[in-house]
Amino acid sequence: MLFKVEMDVKVPLDYDVDHFADLKRKELERFQELQKVGTWRHIWRVVGLYSNISIFDVTSSSELHDVLISLPLYPFMEVRVTALCRHPSSIHDDDR
Amino acid sequence: MLFKVEMDVKVPLDYDVDHFADLKRKELERFQELQKVGTWRHIWRVVGLYSNISIFDVTSSSELHDVLISLPLYPFMEVRVTALCRHPSSIHDDDR
Amino acid sequence: MLFKVEMDVKVPLDYDVDHFADLKRKELERFQELQKVGTWRHIWRVVGLYSNISIFDVTSSSELHDVLISLPLYPFMEVRVTALCRHPSSIHDDDR
Amino acid sequence: MLFKVEMDVKVPLDYDVDHFADLKRKELERFQELQKVGTWRHIWRVVGLYSNISIFDVTSSSELHDVLISLPLYPFMEVRVTALCRHPSSIHDDDR
Amino acid sequence: MLFKVEMDVKVPLDYDVDHFADLKRKELERFQELQKVGTWRHIWRVVGLYSNISIFDVTSSSELHDVLISLPLYPFMEVRVTALCRHPSSIHDDDR
Amino acid sequence: MLFKVEMDVKVPLDYDVDHFADLKRKELERFQELQKVGTWRHIWRVVGLYSNISIFDVTSSSELHDVLISLPLYPFMEVRVTALCRHPSSIHDDDR
Amino acid sequence: MLFKVEMDVKVPLDYDVDHFADLKRKELERFQELQKVGTWRHIWRVVGLYSNISIFDVTSSSELHDVLISLPLYPFMEVRVTALCRHPSSIHDDDR
Amino acid sequence: MLFKVEMDVKVPLDYDVDHFADLKRKELERFQELQKVGTWRHIWRVVGLYSNISIFDVTSSSELHDVLISLPLYPFMEVRVTALCRHPSSIHDDDR
Amino acid sequence: MLFKVEMDVKVPLDYDVDHFADLKRKELERFQELQKVGTWRHIWRVVGLYSNISIFDVTSSSELHDVLISLPLYPFMEVRVTALCRHPSSIHDDDR
Amino acid sequence: MLFKVEMDVKVPLDYDVDHFADLKRKELERFQELQKVGTWRHIWRVVGLYSNISIFDVTSSSELHDVLISLPLYPFMEVRVTALCRHPSSIHDDDR
Repeated sequence: MLFKVEMDVKVPLDYDVDHFADLKRKELERFQELQKVGTWRHIWRVVGLYSNISIFDVTSSSELHDVLISLPLYPFMEVRVTALCRHPSSIHDDDR
Repeated sequence: MLFKVEMDVKVPLDYDVDHFADLKRKELERFQELQKVGTWRHIWRVVGLYSNISIFDVTSSSELHDVLISLPLYPFMEVRVTALCRHPSSIHDDDR
Repeated sequence: MLFKVEMDVKVPLDYDVDHFADLKRKELERFQELQKVGTWRHIWRVVGLYSNISIFDVTSSSELHDVLISLPLYPFMEVRVTALCRHPSSIHDDDR
Repeated sequence: MLFKVEMDVKVPLDYDVDHFADLKRKELERFQELQKVGTWRHIWRVVGLYSNISIFDVTSSSELHDVLISLPLYPFMEVRVTALCRHPSSIHDDDR
Repeated sequence: MLFKVEMDVKVPLDYDVDHFADLKRKELERFQELQKVGTWRHIWRVVGLYSNISIFDVTSSSELHDVLISLPLYPFMEVRVTALCRHPSSIHDDDR
Repeated sequence: MLFKVEMDVKVPLDYDVDHFADLKRKELERFQELQKVGTWRHIWRVVGLYSNISIFDVTSSSELHDVLISLPLYPFMEVRVTALCRHPSSIHDDDR
Repeated sequence: MLFKVEMDVKVPLDYDVDHFADLKRKELERFQELQKVGTWRHIWRVVGLYSNISIFDVTSSSELHDVLISLPLYPFMEVRVTALCRHPSSIHDDDR
Repeated sequence: MLFKVEMDVKVPLDYDVDHFADLKRKELERFQELQKVGTWRHIWRVVGLYSNISIFDVTSSSELHDVLISLPLYPFMEVRVTALCRHPSSIHDDDR
Repeated sequence: MLFKVEMDVKVPLDYDVDHFADLKRKELERFQELQKVGTWRHIWRVVGLYSNISIFDVTSSSELHDVLISLPLYPFMEVRVTALCRHPSSIHDDDR
Repeated sequence: MLFKVEMDVKVPLDYDVDHFADLKRKELERFQELQKVGTWRHIWRVVGLYSNISIFDVTSSSELHDVLISLPLYPFMEVRVTALCRHPSSIHDDDR
């Protein structure tokens, strides 16, 4: 199952800088784990914003839910989820 | 240069069915040409809608503009364009 | 996989009444087929509107896509799709 | 009387973790009471969000009002209420 | 059960004037019937618009649904429905 | 002169409970005074929200302004004001 | 009583040019009558749009309603009405 | 040059009352200076809101910018600016 | 005086192709006249849309109004106008 | 590559005045560096707001991203980015 997930990160001006840096390090580790196993299939930055557009490939909606809400930066995120499916016109067999 | 392009297709209820089928055939051909050369890098369907989410990889903004406005179904589309860039955390060298 | 689907139906004032009645009959038949097999699990009317809120239970996103776009009244609909998952607090084992 | 209720929960970043955990426990208890008596008829999670979509079956609008505003997490919620009614096409006599 | 219903009427510029006048006469008759029996409890015009704000008092959501969609001008209306309940602070016993 | 006024009350999570209870008592007194003299002609609760929909009957726009901004809970309110007028179709001479 | 009224005029591309010119002449006459008697107290154009911002000074909401809906171009307008009152800080006694 | 300026004032619930009263006094003085010289040509209150609608008559866009951002209450305002021009239909030579 | 003007062009699907091509030729001529005299100071295309973002430099708001509404493609445009002024930080004396 | 960037600056009422003045000085220096090298090609103030509209000319989307997120006032900004391209009708060879 494929999903587009858009994540906007908003950090309060007075948030503790070291604590946030620590959360970012944890987020990066978790992201790379999920990328390696193919769950977090694609990620792109939105130019000029602290936002990304990602494609997730999961075995169930619940898996996606659990992955997202346990992200270290989740409490700072506004998240938009859109269910996708393969496009029948695609010439790539594994275009996910 | 990477762009996310979202395309919603709206066809008037009374539009000529054969003419539209013809335009769809042309759209499909043009899409596959662009996919083969790597310009139209990804395409996904939005579940339940006549809409897609695509990633384009072009050498200039003008190239993207020309590609989009010459699509056979362009006059039926509402299009949203977002400039993207590679995400530095990605472990894939060619994640475009 | 569970999805909430909201469908608003808009019929042009000058649309042929008999043709629309015919499409409604076909929509009803298709709806009841899908309800019997459990795909279209719930449907409620929104009070005062020509709209419904439905819960679909499908084996894949693609199945939902194909079901929705082939509905006889689909060309008259504005559709909003939201991916759901079971709620862990629910005391009903089969609350879908 | 049937209502769709959508609840989005927003917790301030600096809210006391233990206090919130306590409120969640009370919310869960209250939810299960209401589910057992059939008032809170259905609940689904919205994938990726701290939100749910619920169907309530109450004897009056006032009953729904009292139930909602006394939920332990109500002060953290943004709530949207939509009045529903049974759909005449439904083949299930008790589809509520 | 009390509902606020807001109705905006939009008439196409080229709609047949006599036909619309006929529908307005039928709407007026129907409105006054419903007002006499207390179903359409209040109506006010929104200044400067072809819109009204009304309070309905019905025995069920389905009754309201059937009343609204059978209004002669319903096909020209955009309708917004909001469920209300008596306010406990009110000093009028029958403030509906 | 008739006005619809919609009031949404938002209380910060950490607002002093006793102080707010005191303001609510004052709001209730003021509301009932205004209801007795016929200025605050109708009030209804919006189901599930801390919001009301009210009809005011005042002799001038300035009177309404002064009444609203001096409400004890006004600093917590988001207010929407819509000018109304009697509907000529109404069969009630005093439907205000 | 003072009101701000914003009027946006939208003319279909294929509307009969002579008929519209005739309606504009009638609108102009009616506007100038209302301006002379002080009802249509101010009018300004919004730069670049077929829109105006006007201040009306009327004796009742109903008067404003009747004035607006009988304007020759009313069927082409989208109208927004806002109730105003004199500002107590104004040094002009007759600033209406 | 004429501009419509709409100003909404929002004061945090816990803002120091005396400090704000002081800023209001300064705002009033500044407003009356600008009104005397004809820059702040009109002001009206929006009924029920802490908002005004004003007409400014300035010799340049920069003059308007400097006037607005130096208002004592500017940090509390949400401001919307719309460029206007005289309406050619107006019978008043100096309707500004 | 500087203004940002955003123009979106929408052409009905069934509009006469030759007539529109003729209007585009006239629009181009008019645009280039205005560009030569410095009124239409900048123009950029929005990538993927039939829209432009332009900077106008005019001696009055009325001049801008007259220029815009007389554009050959104006009846097909949705236009948004924003008043600008020079930025005091700019190191270019003639940055308009 | 050309981009329109709109920046709205929002400063909390209680932010330290000296610290913000210091950030503004750094922002000004950085802006002028970027203006000198041609990256920040144009800037205009939006009248009455703490906002600007800018045109950036960069060699890649990533360059724009890095420039924007490292601006000293970036944490106070809401930013909107739109990809542009030269307009083929322009008579200026270097209109960027």
